[in-house]
Amino acid sequence: MKKKQPFQPDWRKTPPEPLSFRSIFKWGAPDGFKHPNHGLYELLKSTFSMNDGHFSTKQNEGNSTVAVNKKTPAILSDEQIQTLENIVGKTNINTDDYARVKYSTGKTMEEIALLREGGTGPLCDLVVHPRNKDDIRQIVAYAHEQRIPVYTFGGGSSVTLGLTPVKGGITLVMSTHMNKITEFNETNQTITAESGIMGPELEQALNRAPVLYNSKHPYTCGHFPQSFEFSTLGGWILAKGSGQQSSYYGDACDMVISQEYVTPAGSFKTMDYPSTATGPMVNDIMKGSEGSFGILVSATMKIFRHMPQNRHRFSFIFPSFADAVNACRDISQGEFGMPSVLRISDPEETWIGLKQHGIEGTVLDKIITYKGYKPMERCLMIGHTEGEASFSRGVYRSVKKICRHHRGMTLTGYPVRKWEKGKFADPYMREDLNDFGITIDTLETGVTWDRLHKVHLEVREFIKSRPQTLCLTHCSHFYSQGTNLYFIFIGKFQSTAEYKAFQVEIIDRIERSGGSLSHHHGVGKMISPLMERHLGKEQMEVLKALKKHFDPENIMNPGGTLGFDPQEPPGIQQENAKISG
Amino acid sequence: MKKKQPFQPDWRKTPPEPLSFRSIFKWGAPDGFKHPNHGLYELLKSTFSMNDGHFSTKQNEGNSTVAVNKKTPAILSDEQIQTLENIVGKTNINTDDYARVKYSTGKTMEEIALLREGGTGPLCDLVVHPRNKDDIRQIVAYAHEQRIPVYTFGGGSSVTLGLTPVKGGITLVMSTHMNKITEFNETNQTITAESGIMGPELEQALNRAPVLYNSKHPYTCGHFPQSFEFSTLGGWILAKGSGQQSSYYGDACDMVISQEYVTPAGSFKTMDYPSTATGPMVNDIMKGSEGSFGILVSATMKIFRHMPQNRHRFSFIFPSFADAVNACRDISQGEFGMPSVLRISDPEETWIGLKQHGIEGTVLDKIITYKGYKPMERCLMIGHTEGEASFSRGVYRSVKKICRHHRGMTLTGYPVRKWEKGKFADPYMREDLNDFGITIDTLETGVTWDRLHKVHLEVREFIKSRPQTLCLTHCSHFYSQGTNLYFIFIGKFQSTAEYKAFQVEIIDRIERSGGSLSHHHGVGKMISPLMERHLGKEQMEVLKALKKHFDPENIMNPGGTLGFDPQEPPGIQQENAKISG
Repeated sequence: MKKKQPFQPDWRKTPPEPLSFRSIFKWGAPDGFKHPNHGLYELLKSTFSMNDGHFSTKQNEGNSTVAVNKKTPAILSDEQIQTLENIVGKTNINTDDYARVKYSTGKTMEEIALLREGGTGPLCDLVVHPRNKDDIRQIVAYAHEQRIPVYTFGGGSSVTLGLTPVKGGITLVMSTHMNKITEFNETNQTITAESGIMGPELEQALNRAPVLYNSKHPYTCGHFPQSFEFSTLGGWILAKGSGQQSSYYGDACDMVISQEYVTPAGSFKTMDYPSTATGPMVNDIMKGSEGSFGILVSATMKIFRHMPQNRHRFSFIFPSFADAVNACRDISQGEFGMPSVLRISDPEETWIGLKQHGIEGTVLDKIITYKGYKPMERCLMIGHTEGEASFSRGVYRSVKKICRHHRGMTLTGYPVRKWEKGKFADPYMREDLNDFGITIDTLETGVTWDRLHKVHLEVREFIKSRPQTLCLTHCSHFYSQGTNLYFIFIGKFQSTAEYKAFQVEIIDRIERSGGSLSHHHGVGKMISPLMERHLGKEQMEVLKALKKHFDPENIMNPGGTLGFDPQEPPGIQQENAKISG
Repeated sequence: MKKKQPFQPDWRKTPPEPLSFRSIFKWGAPDGFKHPNHGLYELLKSTFSMNDGHFSTKQNEGNSTVAVNKKTPAILSDEQIQTLENIVGKTNINTDDYARVKYSTGKTMEEIALLREGGTGPLCDLVVHPRNKDDIRQIVAYAHEQRIPVYTFGGGSSVTLGLTPVKGGITLVMSTHMNKITEFNETNQTITAESGIMGPELEQALNRAPVLYNSKHPYTCGHFPQSFEFSTLGGWILAKGSGQQSSYYGDACDMVISQEYVTPAGSFKTMDYPSTATGPMVNDIMKGSEGSFGILVSATMKIFRHMPQNRHRFSFIFPSFADAVNACRDISQGEFGMPSVLRISDPEETWIGLKQHGIEGTVLDKIITYKGYKPMERCLMIGHTEGEASFSRGVYRSVKKICRHHRGMTLTGYPVRKWEKGKFADPYMREDLNDFGITIDTLETGVTWDRLHKVHLEVREFIKSRPQTLCLTHCSHFYSQGTNLYFIFIGKFQSTAEYKAFQVEIIDRIERSGGSLSHHHGVGKMISPLMERHLGKEQMEVLKALKKHFDPENIMNPGGTLGFDPQEPPGIQQENAKISG
């Protein structure tokens, strides 16, 4: 008897309609897609008590043309708009609804929910595309004088309401013009670029340096966040990003040699010494300032010799999360160099991962189960090494030895290759889930080794206390003193309010259990209300003193950034809107 | 015919007299000595046109008992002294001349010159030995209320007038009581200690961790400045020190996970996450603050597995400084890990080094000269690797390969072992030279690779433009983006004024030629007058905003620190005093 072809939801495979809401909130390339596979689809159905019927009709696709249907702050006068237009030229100004919504929207769940319903969050009054730092100097000086709020849009990938123009005013789009490489310096092994450059542009130039710059070696930027293709150099630094290869190359801020800023208190470029003992470093002070001190116009970054041919891939299955963590700690403290990619999944993420990769139920599954690696206990590790050939091989060998010591069983390099292929693609699945009323979101935190399990347990316990909610967790950035925890939760929510309340509680649990408020997403205006509780009043006052110095009129990314002027959460005015159904 | 025993100066081999000026300015242990060898002695004679006769009588040995023979600021009232005594107890207060001079004096050339003549620089009114952070909290609060200057003395090894109490007031001696290890955390691989702990105490505890703390591994702090034995954890962080193994372990500030401060604006402890994206890091902002923001009471530092048995030693001779630099750059950019110690000497330092090590004129000398490594052109590299066995071996092999590629010839591990033996001892020679009227001092800078030769050349040119002046230069801390330049200059000066004018000119040349104002000595009150020129007004204003926040009454290390309130250089009142003869 021929097996009946199983039902497949009609996952959307067409680009969003031009000028539609969907064209704004859809992740990544308009024609980029990654759909849940059969294993994941079955899991969704069973988790949420759904059937094929529930996956027959899409909801709130956001296909309508953008129109702003609510009163938004309109704080700019015609004269002010004219003055700004005189600075950058008419072609570099937008006042139309579409541009205003597009450049006022990031990628948080609540923003997407609003747009799916034809609503919007707070909007800027004017979109400005500065051509160079002189434009920015004039704009910031004028905005300071006129007390006009100034927001910045780089790649638009913020998941913390970092770019949300809650006070209206101007949004500067950095990626339109300010995306040029201004210096490649092989001697110092640095690249200097304007802050609006996108990841792939930077990386391709470095990979092709022998051709483009007549360099001796090809290079890499070493920073590959999941948002790599749709995020900017400026965003990496200002929100303190980490890439998927951070365990070897370091976090974005570790690579920053020098930065150039325009602030209401003046413009400056920090010095490019690899190390100097001349007091506290302004170069460090600006990192993570999230647009609240001034505009980052350019940065000089460390680069690294690019030798992907030396990569050694590995994956292991461990009997428990504790074993996987212990192996990672031994690796991170072993004094033999670090692998470049290193990721461990907790039992639930491992369970779903094996399902997603079609391993569940196979002979391999039976073998590893038989060998004592039990479902919902076992944990997957994947990774690869980098660097000079013998170094990379040495790290690989040390990793293998340590993993075996911690009862890890090798699964070959296959799962890593599979992960590499899709490493930037997972966010594309969000639209598919949302189209059928399922919410997927993430929160993440930095932890020390000795608090890792407590944070994991307590946060997970809270997430799982909600019925019919999946919680996948991994660690993907390693330091000798600790790591990060990245929580992915999937559920069906009745309303944005219900979802937000859940999200706020998770952040609360992360902080109370001993995690940092964020490991690499920044705090934006979403997490910032907890900043003072987290840092303490004394440290918050230090940041406020800096804010006051740089931006006495509070025009730079005002409305809650870093906790400087806490607001009602943006979007609250629509709190009863449903999230995608 | 029996060769006549050559003349040897009567280098002083006895400890200073108790309570004498010499007991204050002498470097290191009272009974610690390292005397110039015959080769160096002959060089001094020929350089300075001196003969054995000039080395028969010592000058200004500073043997007299300390007595303060000049009016110093006496800004504390009896009531204030009584209040401070009530806080810490009578036994933790000193008002006697000896204590006041001892704890008001660092190790700059001009301070030593003054003390050799029975003079002193600025003095504190009261020496206080706080017992704990509560003492410090009370003292700082009281000093803030009463506007009493507060200085800090750690190990007293500052060579930039960092600790000089130019405004009088209180000096807190951190090393008397606040020298305890408060937590050893093997899981997180950190140690927490009070800031007054001395290097050897910290290191010995870590080396002995398996016995002391029942740890699985022995550990090392990884930070070994030349002043290691006589400097404190607090000084390392606040003056941004680098150790002799920094190329592998990082600079002191790279190891700081968390710090606890008492400031006039409140007390706080920064968080201990290895990485977090919660805005600008107060932990970074405090590094290098040189006591001008508040008092560092405790720090949590990264530690490292201690495996000295895995060390591989190497030394090479290169035909030129350019070759040696190129080899180091290739090593630093090679993506195979870094050696722990890596040092290259310029031609003059190599020339004197070979002389000092008795290699000049030997068969080895003839061989290397014959092979084309010519005196005053050739350059010495020494170093060793660290870390896990196969990693350390791999780095060693890569270094050898690169050095050979850059025309380096191996000189075996012997010179490194010789250097290791005396690595903390060189400063002891200063007293010997000073006793016979010769001044030796150092200045250092951070440089990018592409400005290294310019800075080296221009600074050296200036130093050598002075007749009869030796100039030895090395690079000893390596980064993929650059290194440091450490200048040692030896000359005979007519007066402190002549010496100071020369020193000021050197600092000027360092800065103008493109070096940083300091790589690892900090700026103290000596170099700080150039801070604004160096950083620019905008960045200086950032530091001033922080200063104003932490210390609105300017009581924390006032009088020029970091360029906040530039003063006449301390000690200027005695500008006509001669330097040691």
